[in-house]
Amino acid sequence: MPISGFPEWLPSQRIIEQQILDRIRSTFELYGYAPLETRAVEPLDTLLSKGETSKEVYLLHRLQEDENTKREDQLGLHFDLTVPFARFVTENHGKLQFPFKRYQIQKVWRGERPQEGRYREFLQADIDVVNRDTLPFHFDTEMPLVIGDVFRSLPIPPATILVNNRKICEGFYRGLGLADTAQVLRTVDKLDKIGPEKVAAALIETAGATDAQAGQCLRLAEISATDASFVDRVRALGVTDPMLDEGLDELAQVIEVANQHAPGLVRAELKIARGLDYYTGTVYETLLQGYERFGSITSGGRYDNLASVGNTRFPGVGISIGVSRLLGLLFGQGALTVSRSVPTCVVVAVPSDDRRLECDRIASALRGRGIPTEVSPTAAKFGKQIQFADRRGIPFVWFPGEPDTVKDIRSGEQVEADPETWQPPAADLRPVVSAG
Amino acid sequence: MPISGFPEWLPSQRIIEQQILDRIRSTFELYGYAPLETRAVEPLDTLLSKGETSKEVYLLHRLQEDENTKREDQLGLHFDLTVPFARFVTENHGKLQFPFKRYQIQKVWRGERPQEGRYREFLQADIDVVNRDTLPFHFDTEMPLVIGDVFRSLPIPPATILVNNRKICEGFYRGLGLADTAQVLRTVDKLDKIGPEKVAAALIETAGATDAQAGQCLRLAEISATDASFVDRVRALGVTDPMLDEGLDELAQVIEVANQHAPGLVRAELKIARGLDYYTGTVYETLLQGYERFGSITSGGRYDNLASVGNTRFPGVGISIGVSRLLGLLFGQGALTVSRSVPTCVVVAVPSDDRRLECDRIASALRGRGIPTEVSPTAAKFGKQIQFADRRGIPFVWFPGEPDTVKDIRSGEQVEADPETWQPPAADLRPVVSAG
Repeated sequence: MPISGFPEWLPSQRIIEQQILDRIRSTFELYGYAPLETRAVEPLDTLLSKGETSKEVYLLHRLQEDENTKREDQLGLHFDLTVPFARFVTENHGKLQFPFKRYQIQKVWRGERPQEGRYREFLQADIDVVNRDTLPFHFDTEMPLVIGDVFRSLPIPPATILVNNRKICEGFYRGLGLADTAQVLRTVDKLDKIGPEKVAAALIETAGATDAQAGQCLRLAEISATDASFVDRVRALGVTDPMLDEGLDELAQVIEVANQHAPGLVRAELKIARGLDYYTGTVYETLLQGYERFGSITSGGRYDNLASVGNTRFPGVGISIGVSRLLGLLFGQGALTVSRSVPTCVVVAVPSDDRRLECDRIASALRGRGIPTEVSPTAAKFGKQIQFADRRGIPFVWFPGEPDTVKDIRSGEQVEADPETWQPPAADLRPVVSAG
Repeated sequence: MPISGFPEWLPSQRIIEQQILDRIRSTFELYGYAPLETRAVEPLDTLLSKGETSKEVYLLHRLQEDENTKREDQLGLHFDLTVPFARFVTENHGKLQFPFKRYQIQKVWRGERPQEGRYREFLQADIDVVNRDTLPFHFDTEMPLVIGDVFRSLPIPPATILVNNRKICEGFYRGLGLADTAQVLRTVDKLDKIGPEKVAAALIETAGATDAQAGQCLRLAEISATDASFVDRVRALGVTDPMLDEGLDELAQVIEVANQHAPGLVRAELKIARGLDYYTGTVYETLLQGYERFGSITSGGRYDNLASVGNTRFPGVGISIGVSRLLGLLFGQGALTVSRSVPTCVVVAVPSDDRRLECDRIASALRGRGIPTEVSPTAAKFGKQIQFADRRGIPFVWFPGEPDTVKDIRSGEQVEADPETWQPPAADLRPVVSAG
């Protein structure tokens, strides 16, 4: 029985997922990110110390373990890849070269009740850079370039990366005279869910804002621009604060570098904040054109205080692609197709059971030259063997003989062929993923 | 802190693992196996119904779940990939094409006490074929060919695949007059651990064998051959039984097909049985030359009764490569190395901070042509920037100028170069994994 929140793809969908993961990985590697994989479990204390996530954790128990496992020995499944990465860096900092750029493509688990497209097990593809002591800001400008290149390499609708900087919000709120900036941020973050009126009311009630202050917070949140013009619009609100200046300068850099690389890729969007507590500066989200109503498919930002060893800090910046979420949306809309449901390019037909070894040798020769090949499972009538290929979308059937021939079962064209030299068209060698 | 039994590789080791996984996957696909990934969890009842594995299961609990979760709702992490695969097939049989060949490369978990190189979280790479009703025997002969091709594609010592057939053992024991064949099998399976005398004593004590019967069982277990000569040696023991005949015929086919494909790859080894209960015919193990003392690095066999829907059976045959086990052994002996610890082929040096955008454009051009490139993190002295590359094993440093130049920091050779045309030697494009 399917288990709610634990999606499984059929083989043709898994072929699509794998090709998408190959392209993600390839783009990450083009930028020099090294691969990493961490264990699926972390001590419960590590998981609980980062953010308000206690409700989301799956704990592990051995079936026959005694009742008295101490809390510090309790293990839970990781709920993201950033917390395990920070733990890995502090544990192995003596063996790593800094700045350390890594990517990590793994399942994560959240023990929440599944609802409206939320999964309990899902795949994420993350990049992060950490450094010892301080991390140059230009790494914040690199994240949108990598994500932009990833999405451009996939057969999916164009993506827009939304960027903000928490220093803008915090500095602005502080400059306005609001002390509990975290509470203001949490409240404004609900804007899309509850609307401006309820946000204003909540700011007045829970963050001690006046009507005028609440109005200013809303006006800041309305600002959105695809170039650095947002800076003047913020200035026009008349609030000043050193942290606000720093945030505006940083966000302008992100937007300008991205516009050099790929115009239209990013948008400064001053209402986004990201829920998790550990971000300290730049934050990123991504919307897919035509899928905006489903929300963001990436999540990331700068975190200056997530990892430390003694007095040494390891600040970082990173972004995570919600691969299962993205594929779930696209599969749900029938927006991705693949040319066949198996890797096989050629089926070798078996004329009679006593000739199977001969067919194996043909298959072996084709495989030796990189052509995925199966031998027909039975020596049935050729019509049935062709049907075996047709049902799976396999383009070619090979007939042993004097000489051998190979048939393109789409066109019906059949030609003489030698397994040591015949080559299929490059486009037929692997399954082809396309949009729609 | 490291957690015992949950291994983690450093980035350079993960590069090795990834390249090995790429080759495993590529070989699996050359034989037409389609990719599949199943969820990490199964209902506890599914896990417990297959074999004596109760002690090995990790159960999941949500941190804030109520105490009264019913047993049928309990989830556990899968301990292998065969049980989830059988479940997937019965659940989706209406959507699959049979015979269904799939590969699956995933982590599995076992909640046992870690000891002597046993892991609690480890990576397996499995292939299986299942069919509706009956599965042609020739698929049993394919498994060693795939595994042989996989191992030949890796920079590791030669592998020998050991094959047996449970029908030989069961038929022989029955022909001898021993009724509890399962008990005899379990006892003989301990031969390597406890030696022939204790096995004989245990056969007499727990399986009701006479001295003569116990002696015959041991003589069968001693038989080992790289060709079909084992058949005559079994016949010479004078036991007859129809199931024995069937087993001998099947095993001879496996050996003969493998010898056609790659002489020396397989060995009939009549003592191996595999612990799990679900195998019904062929069983496989694999030893790595020079690493025999560490035991088998693959495990597999034919299972005719693992999956069924109503009266329809889905018999299968498969084999699993213990990837973490293999890598753990090889890393432990320093038997694998990689030419660099990052994917990066070129570092673009930054002459001064105001020229970073220019450096980004060079990097972008190189990446656009598939060359993994990083821009130096700081505009330090060039000596420091070269050191950045050298410490990671990155072969080339690019110097922007009029004209640009690129330096091979291994040879010191520096030449003029254009980011739109320059190409590194093919061998330098990706990290190279090699033996020793």
